[in-house]
Amino acid sequence: MKILVANCGSSSLKYQLFDFSRGEERRVAKGAVEKIGVAGGGARDHRAAASLAFEELRNSGLIQSAEEIDGVGHRVVHGGERFTSSTRIDEAVLREIEACCELAPLHNPPNLAGYRAMKELVPQAAHVAVFDTAFHTSLPAHAYVYGLPYEYFERDRIRRYGFHGTSHRYVAQRVAALEPAARRIVSCHLGNGCSICAIEDGRSVDVSIGFTPLEGLLMGTRSGDLDPSIIFHLIKTQGLDPVRIEKMLNHESGLLGISGVSNDMRDIVLAAAAGNARAELAIEIFCYRARKYIGAYLAALNGADAIVFTAGIGENSPDVRARICKDLENLGVHLDTESNTRARGECRINVPGMPVSMWLIPTNEELLIARDTQRCILTG
Amino acid sequence: MKILVANCGSSSLKYQLFDFSRGEERRVAKGAVEKIGVAGGGARDHRAAASLAFEELRNSGLIQSAEEIDGVGHRVVHGGERFTSSTRIDEAVLREIEACCELAPLHNPPNLAGYRAMKELVPQAAHVAVFDTAFHTSLPAHAYVYGLPYEYFERDRIRRYGFHGTSHRYVAQRVAALEPAARRIVSCHLGNGCSICAIEDGRSVDVSIGFTPLEGLLMGTRSGDLDPSIIFHLIKTQGLDPVRIEKMLNHESGLLGISGVSNDMRDIVLAAAAGNARAELAIEIFCYRARKYIGAYLAALNGADAIVFTAGIGENSPDVRARICKDLENLGVHLDTESNTRARGECRINVPGMPVSMWLIPTNEELLIARDTQRCILTG
Repeated sequence: MKILVANCGSSSLKYQLFDFSRGEERRVAKGAVEKIGVAGGGARDHRAAASLAFEELRNSGLIQSAEEIDGVGHRVVHGGERFTSSTRIDEAVLREIEACCELAPLHNPPNLAGYRAMKELVPQAAHVAVFDTAFHTSLPAHAYVYGLPYEYFERDRIRRYGFHGTSHRYVAQRVAALEPAARRIVSCHLGNGCSICAIEDGRSVDVSIGFTPLEGLLMGTRSGDLDPSIIFHLIKTQGLDPVRIEKMLNHESGLLGISGVSNDMRDIVLAAAAGNARAELAIEIFCYRARKYIGAYLAALNGADAIVFTAGIGENSPDVRARICKDLENLGVHLDTESNTRARGECRINVPGMPVSMWLIPTNEELLIARDTQRCILTG
Repeated sequence: MKILVANCGSSSLKYQLFDFSRGEERRVAKGAVEKIGVAGGGARDHRAAASLAFEELRNSGLIQSAEEIDGVGHRVVHGGERFTSSTRIDEAVLREIEACCELAPLHNPPNLAGYRAMKELVPQAAHVAVFDTAFHTSLPAHAYVYGLPYEYFERDRIRRYGFHGTSHRYVAQRVAALEPAARRIVSCHLGNGCSICAIEDGRSVDVSIGFTPLEGLLMGTRSGDLDPSIIFHLIKTQGLDPVRIEKMLNHESGLLGISGVSNDMRDIVLAAAAGNARAELAIEIFCYRARKYIGAYLAALNGADAIVFTAGIGENSPDVRARICKDLENLGVHLDTESNTRARGECRINVPGMPVSMWLIPTNEELLIARDTQRCILTG
């Protein structure tokens, strides 16, 4: 069984090809078409980008024709309250995904453009939508209802949806395999986007990222949590336009805004080491906010059995992991300095014998998307 | 020594008279003039309200004339970064408090109107400003800098200031007297406004309420924490004016907005007991948010020695205290059911022998304002 995984943004199409033959799960190809629709870029639109991707796959000899593809798994950011799990796409499902575009105007439309392009090129395959929000549809109401007049929830569906669900679900499945007794997990997805998720018995019970991907932790260019009054203050005292403020909070804030150096933690760590005080402050705020969310979810879960780090920063920055976990030993959190420093790939990083186990688990959303696609094919 | 404490809002003047003679701290009178400036109300302006207050005090026989007052302690909401402690008001201080009006446009102007009225009536007394923000000027930068482009902090002073500082400071002082070994305190001020404060060695190191009193916990009519994107979504999809949204988040949200019943926890508890599902949800969200902040500050402090409840809900609702502390025993938090149910006045409410002590401590901001005023008089 050959499964293609597609992750379409507004200007990029990333793909991975999996071969699930003979009970194995082999990723056989990985590629990306960037700068879609950009003058001088590689592809006019998502249709042209999808054609390019298939040309690359044929040129590499991995497939002879698109007809060999059994299934295409599409990453879809927003599935609203409707989609609690991955779903084969038919006309009715397509309309419901379109209805979620208002909630994710930047993400769902390119996801759908990617689907339409792929559907045209690989019409015989099963097309499956895998939603970033689906894992968080298990949240209890006290975690997803905001403190607004209730009609904004009831009528307008303004609530916490949560994102990065496929990554947190992958982490939950790996912990279940590695340490079956761990019922309560705090999963820290720290990449350019960041979220921390509280998981109980394999189900998401809270997550730091909210109605949109802006809420929660400090991120590469996103502010995360903020006194909402700051927005009104900027409108009143500086005459800023709300559209301008929204752009600022999403694209000019976070690590980039505080440090003034970069949205990339690696650059900021270098700048801090060279004595840049704002870079140092950006790292400290990033780590302090993560520490507070870990504490909040320890309270939500009545303690955790496992804390996991994943995604770009979570997997590759032992210093950030160490700073987040510093001075948490009275809550049972003991990071092992040597294991943490040496950590590569999937491994344990807590001091042995301590109550909270700690893991580094490289995330693999694409594999989970491929598996979901296979399952949807096999179960019809 | 006779000290008057004044707390002026836009339409009210609350006062208390303290007699600090012979080493005692006796509150001898307490009163309020309401509906200032309201048609048919008791006073045209703060000047008339202050005159009324003195008339009441003279009529009660507690003072013969305003000249007996040695000091007047004024509650001032916002002291910005400038005022780290209570300060005798002179012309220079007055100008600096006026400069903080932009940061607290609803609160500082009536505080100053009250000061001017009192100064005119009691010119010989020492007038002292006691700031809600002062206790939180000890916050470290990683707790007060938001994830915005840095110029909004550096140039515009947009940062976490925190409020309810006089209440949290009172709690810290009482814990220091009751349990001197308690270095790390989580103070839960749960009234119509709510905040939780992390205190280390008598100093505030973090607080849930932020740039304005809107951020943090769910409150009587305020939303507390919110994905900031919700504001932009409401502007775009419903054409709401930012001024309208600000009013909604401050006055129509929180317990009132979710329950649809009241902003008063007592009404909501009754409604929930009678089967109102939205009232039940409002209580659960209120308690869950408090639980998460307690957890966050346990992480910030590397565990707490004491957790304290104060203010209207914190002092008077054993059910809310119990729901907040439910299922926290793995973090060392064991509320004693019987002590909690019976609790009246200052008392301990944890299971004896458990690692985290828990207290109910009725707050007394006015006493602290009077004490600060006395100290400013005695130290010149």
